[in-house]
Amino acid sequence: MHQNSSLCSPSGVIALLTDFGVTDPYVGVMKGVVLRLAPQVQCLDLTHGVAPQQIRQGAWLLETSYRYFAPGTIFTCVVDPGVGSQRHPIAFAAGEWYFVGPDNGMFSAILRDQPVHAVVALSNPDYCLPQISATFQGRDIFAPISAHLANGVPLAEFGPSLQASDLQRLPLEPGQYDGRIEGQIVHCDHFGNLITDIPADLVPNLMARTPDASMQLVLPVQGIAVAERRSYFAERDASPHPFYYLDSSGYIGIAVQNGNAASQLGVQMGDSVFVLCQA
Amino acid sequence: MHQNSSLCSPSGVIALLTDFGVTDPYVGVMKGVVLRLAPQVQCLDLTHGVAPQQIRQGAWLLETSYRYFAPGTIFTCVVDPGVGSQRHPIAFAAGEWYFVGPDNGMFSAILRDQPVHAVVALSNPDYCLPQISATFQGRDIFAPISAHLANGVPLAEFGPSLQASDLQRLPLEPGQYDGRIEGQIVHCDHFGNLITDIPADLVPNLMARTPDASMQLVLPVQGIAVAERRSYFAERDASPHPFYYLDSSGYIGIAVQNGNAASQLGVQMGDSVFVLCQA
Amino acid sequence: MHQNSSLCSPSGVIALLTDFGVTDPYVGVMKGVVLRLAPQVQCLDLTHGVAPQQIRQGAWLLETSYRYFAPGTIFTCVVDPGVGSQRHPIAFAAGEWYFVGPDNGMFSAILRDQPVHAVVALSNPDYCLPQISATFQGRDIFAPISAHLANGVPLAEFGPSLQASDLQRLPLEPGQYDGRIEGQIVHCDHFGNLITDIPADLVPNLMARTPDASMQLVLPVQGIAVAERRSYFAERDASPHPFYYLDSSGYIGIAVQNGNAASQLGVQMGDSVFVLCQA
Repeated sequence: MHQNSSLCSPSGVIALLTDFGVTDPYVGVMKGVVLRLAPQVQCLDLTHGVAPQQIRQGAWLLETSYRYFAPGTIFTCVVDPGVGSQRHPIAFAAGEWYFVGPDNGMFSAILRDQPVHAVVALSNPDYCLPQISATFQGRDIFAPISAHLANGVPLAEFGPSLQASDLQRLPLEPGQYDGRIEGQIVHCDHFGNLITDIPADLVPNLMARTPDASMQLVLPVQGIAVAERRSYFAERDASPHPFYYLDSSGYIGIAVQNGNAASQLGVQMGDSVFVLCQA
Repeated sequence: MHQNSSLCSPSGVIALLTDFGVTDPYVGVMKGVVLRLAPQVQCLDLTHGVAPQQIRQGAWLLETSYRYFAPGTIFTCVVDPGVGSQRHPIAFAAGEWYFVGPDNGMFSAILRDQPVHAVVALSNPDYCLPQISATFQGRDIFAPISAHLANGVPLAEFGPSLQASDLQRLPLEPGQYDGRIEGQIVHCDHFGNLITDIPADLVPNLMARTPDASMQLVLPVQGIAVAERRSYFAERDASPHPFYYLDSSGYIGIAVQNGNAASQLGVQMGDSVFVLCQA
Repeated sequence: MHQNSSLCSPSGVIALLTDFGVTDPYVGVMKGVVLRLAPQVQCLDLTHGVAPQQIRQGAWLLETSYRYFAPGTIFTCVVDPGVGSQRHPIAFAAGEWYFVGPDNGMFSAILRDQPVHAVVALSNPDYCLPQISATFQGRDIFAPISAHLANGVPLAEFGPSLQASDLQRLPLEPGQYDGRIEGQIVHCDHFGNLITDIPADLVPNLMARTPDASMQLVLPVQGIAVAERRSYFAERDASPHPFYYLDSSGYIGIAVQNGNAASQLGVQMGDSVFVLCQA
């Protein structure tokens, strides 16, 4: 763990990413806790639409979002099926940003892509709420720690140092077997667009303006091969056929123009997808 | 109604609790009205997921949330099936906080648990929008009143005093018959967790670390007895069986690990639940 | 295009209206981009519940909301099925407000109702993100332009002037044939209330306190005639029968007390509605 010159002071923005949804007061209470301790902070909803307990999806949504935020932004990420168990609550500085949440793989892409400046376990009760429940540590630990961090309390105050190499990491890359790339649908968005974990730059021939006609994107569970590539949704006349495209995340997506690919094709998060090169 | 030394000046935070959902511009327009009158205010969504017209649920969500907010926070609560009818629009100071909304029982727990410093009926049109509709008084009355309150306008300016004892109150406590506690499911959260109106400290033998084995939590409509107690969701290996737990609200909840208890068990808000002590 | 004395400086509020929903990080990332460039700005969610690609609905929701916001508010409106195609990204000042989004009809009511002070095409890449994707220009163009506008950059910096008369406009008025008014359901809200595109003041006899008994509101697809008028939802005892009312938007709505008219009557957005005058 080295000190990197790009380490920034925490800014006044806390971005929240959870699987709490938007129907309960859970997120509102976390903001209440933050503003009570740090009234100058702006709390911002990155998303609360991670599917319940889906750490891999949460990690992907964080990976494809955090770079757009100002240096010093604190990302408070609570997708935490192990709440109350032995997993560590942690906070760390990496790249230009700060991250707070349970150590369960949620931060895998950050740990892979950014230099980590410092990691601590959140064990100092002085910076948590007086009573720590076993089922809502977003309120009792992660919100107050984030507020104190925004107030300038140094990471080292919150608890002992951890090695970045000891943190939980999920496998993020699609499999490659005999040169075949096998990925999964990592996110179905509000429009029904299906987004894969296959980075577009991994398959340049598939993603070229004039793609290699012998290549297709295949959804094996559904028995569907997608051969049409579009640069944008309305590139051709509306048709009910799925096409693949370079998603704004940098990954390959599958969509239907003015339609919902997920429901039309019967695809769910986690379903397999691979790139087929025909002989 | 006595003056309490804990009366605080309104802070710059307005927390909104409604049954408006998040698909319409209703909440956004309320915030627009607030910021037009009080640009320095932070509007915060406590929740807009109260089920339509469910005042009892709204009262419970407010009860279990407000203590986490800074003194002076203004809670603007609009679950208002009687909008346009004769119920009073009110504002009041209680404990360290302020509350604005219709007098329909929504504030029952606040009135029970906090000293009330002052209550007024919102009858002064000078602090409302020029045109008051009969169907959206969140926009026309409650938002502008909240903004003026945040700006420091005294409660007495908004209209005549009311007696706290005259305000609407819902029955909040679970029934107790022959020593048997009979409650209801007062909230089903985003995860499908079922939360009862039975405070955990009312049944210490059921909620003990080693609970009394002769006690169970029963859902009579579904014919289900829940005998397993967990301290946290992942306390044991994942199983499809429901367990009960101390919810972060202080009430007893029923959950399934990594599952949705509400849909799995077929339970809805309002369904009965009781504590069974076997002979 | 004339200069109007009511032209205001941009305020520090950006109100977002999209069809992005609330489950993805799309809106959160737009806010991240804004706050990175303009940390002093308050981003406010007007609504993200426009149905996917439904420009007409989005235009109506904007029309019935923007007047409640402070002069200088910037409305960033992204309902953009044509993203990446040849439609212009635009920004303009009209009345006391600013508007940013694609030129696809979304702003029809603003262009009809407000004096337009200036319109520009957003072609200057200096005020966009360095990489402009073909599928998420809310993030890459509209968010950064809105932030720069809030920072005081003049409209003329963003690109060449356009004529307001050249902008896309949707037909907004209900049809009138042989004196019969034929409209549509333009929005179904969270409560299931059905809101028409028929302004209440267009049919004074129908909307009078004592309406003309020979007039009814008809849903021809469902074969339903609605004859009861209410001033507010709880005006009479609860009944399962639909009634019509003056919606807070100024348009005629159809509702069921404590019920969901949309699901009960089987009505969808876009369905026909007309005013029947019996002989």
